[in-house]
Amino acid sequence: MTTIRCTVMQTPSPDTLEVLRDVVITIDESGTITAIDDGDAGIAVDRDLGSSVVVVPGLIDAHIHAPQWPQLGTGLDLPLEQWLFDNTFPLEAKLTDPAFAAVVWPDMVDTLLRHGTTTAVYYATISVETTTMLAAVCAELGQRAFVGRVGMDHPDGTPEWYRDASAVAGVDASMASIEQISQLGSPLVRPIVTPRFAPACTDALLEGLGELARSTSTISQTHCSESDWEHGYAFERFGRSDTEALDGFGLIADHSVLAHGDHLGDADFELITRRGAGVAHCPLSNAYFANAVFPARRALDAGVRLGLGTDVAGGARPGVLSQCGDAVTMSRMLDEGVDARVEPSERGVTGSRISITEAFWMATLGGADLLGVPCGLLEVGRQFDAVAVDLDAGTSGLRRWEGVDDDARTFEKIVRLAGPTDIAEVWVRGNTVIS
Amino acid sequence: MTTIRCTVMQTPSPDTLEVLRDVVITIDESGTITAIDDGDAGIAVDRDLGSSVVVVPGLIDAHIHAPQWPQLGTGLDLPLEQWLFDNTFPLEAKLTDPAFAAVVWPDMVDTLLRHGTTTAVYYATISVETTTMLAAVCAELGQRAFVGRVGMDHPDGTPEWYRDASAVAGVDASMASIEQISQLGSPLVRPIVTPRFAPACTDALLEGLGELARSTSTISQTHCSESDWEHGYAFERFGRSDTEALDGFGLIADHSVLAHGDHLGDADFELITRRGAGVAHCPLSNAYFANAVFPARRALDAGVRLGLGTDVAGGARPGVLSQCGDAVTMSRMLDEGVDARVEPSERGVTGSRISITEAFWMATLGGADLLGVPCGLLEVGRQFDAVAVDLDAGTSGLRRWEGVDDDARTFEKIVRLAGPTDIAEVWVRGNTVIS
Ligand SMILES: [Zn+2]
Ligand SMILES: [Zn+2]
Repeated sequence: MTTIRCTVMQTPSPDTLEVLRDVVITIDESGTITAIDDGDAGIAVDRDLGSSVVVVPGLIDAHIHAPQWPQLGTGLDLPLEQWLFDNTFPLEAKLTDPAFAAVVWPDMVDTLLRHGTTTAVYYATISVETTTMLAAVCAELGQRAFVGRVGMDHPDGTPEWYRDASAVAGVDASMASIEQISQLGSPLVRPIVTPRFAPACTDALLEGLGELARSTSTISQTHCSESDWEHGYAFERFGRSDTEALDGFGLIADHSVLAHGDHLGDADFELITRRGAGVAHCPLSNAYFANAVFPARRALDAGVRLGLGTDVAGGARPGVLSQCGDAVTMSRMLDEGVDARVEPSERGVTGSRISITEAFWMATLGGADLLGVPCGLLEVGRQFDAVAVDLDAGTSGLRRWEGVDDDARTFEKIVRLAGPTDIAEVWVRGNTVIS
Repeated sequence: MTTIRCTVMQTPSPDTLEVLRDVVITIDESGTITAIDDGDAGIAVDRDLGSSVVVVPGLIDAHIHAPQWPQLGTGLDLPLEQWLFDNTFPLEAKLTDPAFAAVVWPDMVDTLLRHGTTTAVYYATISVETTTMLAAVCAELGQRAFVGRVGMDHPDGTPEWYRDASAVAGVDASMASIEQISQLGSPLVRPIVTPRFAPACTDALLEGLGELARSTSTISQTHCSESDWEHGYAFERFGRSDTEALDGFGLIADHSVLAHGDHLGDADFELITRRGAGVAHCPLSNAYFANAVFPARRALDAGVRLGLGTDVAGGARPGVLSQCGDAVTMSRMLDEGVDARVEPSERGVTGSRISITEAFWMATLGGADLLGVPCGLLEVGRQFDAVAVDLDAGTSGLRRWEGVDDDARTFEKIVRLAGPTDIAEVWVRGNTVIS
């Protein structure tokens, strides 16, 4: 048991900012919050974080490509096809080398933790070995993670030198990956069934991975209706939407993570919601590869489960907080439109805005609900995955100014500005992993 | 005289990345680069920055509101009018208090320098005193700066408690500000004539400040055609475009800085270019207050002088590098459009993209040319304003990976990722100001 006195800011619902001022949080040895008491209740406090610190729930990156870490920030001028074949697949293939993975994975996980990412949903590589290594690194450094061996076998959508040898081989490898990750025995790390996306997978592989997810009670992830091209591709190949086709393969199920979804229609949202699946919204990446802004407002209103993803390295920045800012920014651009030569009334899609509170909810409780993990909010019964932000310490521009800030402004500053220099401590499952 | 051995990356033209590998830069006591020699030329080297460091020209923030620093990252959900009257003018009024300014200015300038901003073009306050204080802080901390006392006297566009008492009083105050800043005697700091924007100024004030700029050979800055509202306002009040009206007041002249300009037409671009004026493009702020994306591609092609601005605090982030990334992102969104429900061919303005190289050029040499200052590029005859980026040190995700990076990728990573934790040293006028 440990007790921490602090002030908490968090979002129990998309449009609610909750401030718990000077509370004492009691955490048991499994990392579960067992009580949150008033600071004046006379409970013995192990640690008092002081008045310059605000604690927020740990951030959840619902979509990130681990083997693209070394190209973070590059190649975004290329069209998706060329970016994949010229830059990305060759780099992912390098990450099937355990020696390279042994250098890249720890650097990535450590950096993400410093940005406050306490849970990450990874696409790893096609290699069982380096995928398990990633899970082991997460377990060792203390990050909660879903780690997916990537299934991809389609001769048209993948290069000969980076694909599963066959659908059967792909399913077998994913099964082996699930077993190896489970055998790590870490309470932090779980496997996730990961067909790359429909264009990279044969029907047999999609079918086999859907069945594998079902039979092993493992959640799944894939890309869905990301771009005009991918959205149209599904209609051409399957005669129906990407969502409907994936559903036919058993890949739209409870807690399935669908990355991007910029081109999802209302019927798709309805099906996704009915299944309990949801979308990992990746706002910055979308500006480069999705040909449109994800209609986050419409998805929120439709009740779709929603998390936020960095989509490293299609997204050029590693932190989830910066994706909160981008999610709001991009929703404003959808709302107002972009071309000054068009009449304002015709320029955008009025009513598309989301707020900082809604974006932060996606990055925390929304993501937790999407994945079915007991974090994302500091309340009794949930895990203590949290980030301490020092309001006076960093170089980000985040500062307290007396007579200027109120709670809402302080929260907005944290979301828009906080980075590694402001983050004083990070906990996962009650354990300090960055300090 | 001092000599520094290092590798330089910079953009001598918008579409050129130049790499000077292992050169020796000789800098004289006035901060001027007197030679750039091959590292093997046998010149005695005072400092060798080593192979993990890349030096880039110092960044130029061509538009930033100093008294909005304490609200950085907040209030962006509000419409411009409300944001100004409820949040911004009250805060700016607080910054006429020397005691508050004495705390805010050093925090801001220090933070900006840590982000690599070696030159900043400030809107200060309406107070001569705190405006001069800002100039003094820049001189003391070593930042090159244009510091403008804000002129604003219009009874409709300003609150009674934060405006010049009359046009004459405003011109007199701006004249006093020019004198006080000049009397500081710093080679780093210069005044800039700063009518806030047409809606906040009477004709008499605009006329008087235009004449003041001319008679004192001081450059000027103002906002121009930022939003639908501001663009339309000029036609209503003046019967012509904002640019044409400002030109009539003598405020479109050589090196005049026009902030935003999202709604400028081709005739405006032509007039601006003819006068030698230019635009401070503020991409992130525009997503919140401009109702459209600035057509940076069109402006580049028209030969308009172009710099980048953070527009703190309408822009929520303090660094110019992050504005380079945003400038590219926003140009992509203008290019492709935002609404997935519209046909791709109708969605955006094809041909609107700019590159990372072009964005960085705006942030360095473009900005220097806009302002008429001899920095922005490391070449003989220019000042050594520079930023050393350590490729292995920070928490931003910026890393070197052997076998993955080439020069173009390394440069892209620096622009998209580098922040204070990666910035090892900053020089202005040859002097180390951050290390
Ligand atoms: Zn992805
Ligand atoms: Zn401005």
